Amino acid sequence: MPPKSHISVDIAVRGATVISMIRTLEWTGEGVVRFLDQTRLPEEEVYVECRDAAAVAEAIRRMQVRGAPAIGIAGAMGLALGARQSRADAFEPFYAELCRVAGELAATRPTAVNLPWALERMKRVALKHRDLPVRAIKARLEQEAKDLWAQDLEVNRAIGRHGEPLLPPGARVLTHCNAGALATAGYGTALGVVRAAHTAGKGIAVLAGETRPFLQGARLTAWELHREGIPVTLITDGMPAALMARGQVDLVLVGADRIARNGDVANKIGTYGLALACRAHGLPFYVAAPLSTLDPTLQSGAAIPIEERSPEEVTTLAGRRIAPAGVPALHQAFDVTPAALVTAIITERGVARPPYAESLAALLGGGRER
Amino acid sequence: MPPKSHISVDIAVRGATVISMIRTLEWTGEGVVRFLDQTRLPEEEVYVECRDAAAVAEAIRRMQVRGAPAIGIAGAMGLALGARQSRADAFEPFYAELCRVAGELAATRPTAVNLPWALERMKRVALKHRDLPVRAIKARLEQEAKDLWAQDLEVNRAIGRHGEPLLPPGARVLTHCNAGALATAGYGTALGVVRAAHTAGKGIAVLAGETRPFLQGARLTAWELHREGIPVTLITDGMPAALMARGQVDLVLVGADRIARNGDVANKIGTYGLALACRAHGLPFYVAAPLSTLDPTLQSGAAIPIEERSPEEVTTLAGRRIAPAGVPALHQAFDVTPAALVTAIITERGVARPPYAESLAALLGGGRER
Repeated sequence: MPPKSHISVDIAVRGATVISMIRTLEWTGEGVVRFLDQTRLPEEEVYVECRDAAAVAEAIRRMQVRGAPAIGIAGAMGLALGARQSRADAFEPFYAELCRVAGELAATRPTAVNLPWALERMKRVALKHRDLPVRAIKARLEQEAKDLWAQDLEVNRAIGRHGEPLLPPGARVLTHCNAGALATAGYGTALGVVRAAHTAGKGIAVLAGETRPFLQGARLTAWELHREGIPVTLITDGMPAALMARGQVDLVLVGADRIARNGDVANKIGTYGLALACRAHGLPFYVAAPLSTLDPTLQSGAAIPIEERSPEEVTTLAGRRIAPAGVPALHQAFDVTPAALVTAIITERGVARPPYAESLAALLGGGRER
Repeated sequence: MPPKSHISVDIAVRGATVISMIRTLEWTGEGVVRFLDQTRLPEEEVYVECRDAAAVAEAIRRMQVRGAPAIGIAGAMGLALGARQSRADAFEPFYAELCRVAGELAATRPTAVNLPWALERMKRVALKHRDLPVRAIKARLEQEAKDLWAQDLEVNRAIGRHGEPLLPPGARVLTHCNAGALATAGYGTALGVVRAAHTAGKGIAVLAGETRPFLQGARLTAWELHREGIPVTLITDGMPAALMARGQVDLVLVGADRIARNGDVANKIGTYGLALACRAHGLPFYVAAPLSTLDPTLQSGAAIPIEERSPEEVTTLAGRRIAPAGVPALHQAFDVTPAALVTAIITERGVARPPYAESLAALLGGGRER
């Protein structure tokens, strides 16, 4: 019989698997940001360790770590690494350096607002503690990044609790891209709601759109649901409307990268088409996102910057050329779904319904620091 | 200076390139059906030769030759090969064998009606000449298959002529799958209209949806337009609605695999979602198809059989897995677009407008044999 302490550790680890079995990203030991390389899934589970801000920026740009909440946390951790590297011994040069590094991290991906949101939060922590020695500020920044990670888990679980009642027993939930454990600290926004409903024994089944060009649905959503035993069936991005017409879909549930004050939602390219198909078939279209995804500075979705990525991600599939050489491609990575097509927005503070200008403001006003 | 006869040949070949540069399929010499293997494009131009009906059936099943009109012609040629192989020396056993082979060819792909249409046409030729020696009937069948090929070229060019006026100068035409030279004897239905407009100097630009899982758009439409210098830009299947919202699309133009009497259109999976997006943005949604794609036996699209293909075509690409092992996938290969979403149907006899029950019947009544 093994020593009792070993058993306890084992049980503790098992007890935590619901949220921690997928280690999307974490701050491990001294000055190391460790994350699961999402470009290698599902073939390989490879972990990457970053020791400086530039490496984190490159990982975000290459989508080794992706998903709006996750890149917010990665950005904060990257900025904490940047702070550690600083040789400044007074606040002003230290803060100037911090702002420069934050700018570099923010420039990696323009659409998800969680990234600048997290970086601003880090900068405010530095400003708040400007009278402490630089070494102490660095420690605060490291702690803030860790806190962001822990809070994201809590936020996601709260989103799950609020969203779960919206999923009827046996619901066939169509989702797009990956708004799961892999897009967050470890539980998921849209897939957090699915997890909560699954845990509640509701017999949920997920239809995962493969989400070309990057295949987040086929590679990531399918991977994380399948390994937890949540029924998932893969479809291509052209199939949803036909499945709706045949009565094979009950609702659509997606994440978000930025939500304007009026409820317009930027999310992975293809989302808007799903919302149009939902309207045509009278199906609910739900968005699940933390309030950090809300950008109250934007009146509407028209002002959301849409990332244009390399056309090569379209002309190749899983690293292999699929189009003739010389053929150009478009790659707008996100689209905007007008608020009028959104049935509800599920946040950690509750479910917002139209009109969103009021409902989102009310949730935001409920105590969230910004 | 080369002999004049050589120059003439050269000019003749050049003059024919508009329709013959892509040799989708043909009857060459004695008892050989030769076609461009579309599963190898765009990487390689490989031609396959079939000497018996079973080989043609397998090629259709594997989509080495595909596209509703092309598989109709391939089926007819396959049946001519089957007839050649027959050792029957009287009409009844010969015809029974012909019917058996036609049944095997028809079973390869259930949705496109052009295949059973062409096979029925072949069987009628045999019946019409039942009093001739079997050898002579075989010759008639071979000729009928060749005629079908030649007629398809003419039909496509007529579709191009009728459809061309619908495309305004500078139109940005979004298409899906491949309804081009590669889907027909060599000019195309939807892409035939594009070719006609391009030849008329209208400055047409094509947005080609990649069309997962088989990637007909990325591999075939991009290939055939690019090599003819018709501007083509590749997009993924999730992008059309967003491009429409940004005003980057003027109209959608697709082919069809089967059209019911009421104008409901079965076409490649993803078409229906495009039609919904067109309606939401007030854009025309055009279908280009020969009248052989019309199935007057079906009242509506609900009765159109939808082919279900292997889920492996969704979970893999060129033998490489893109989804985790064990994850199931759906693969309905076609969808049905209700007539109410179809702005017009372009045929070789003219453009049908709603109500289609009347307009299509009028075109059909205009002399087409069936």
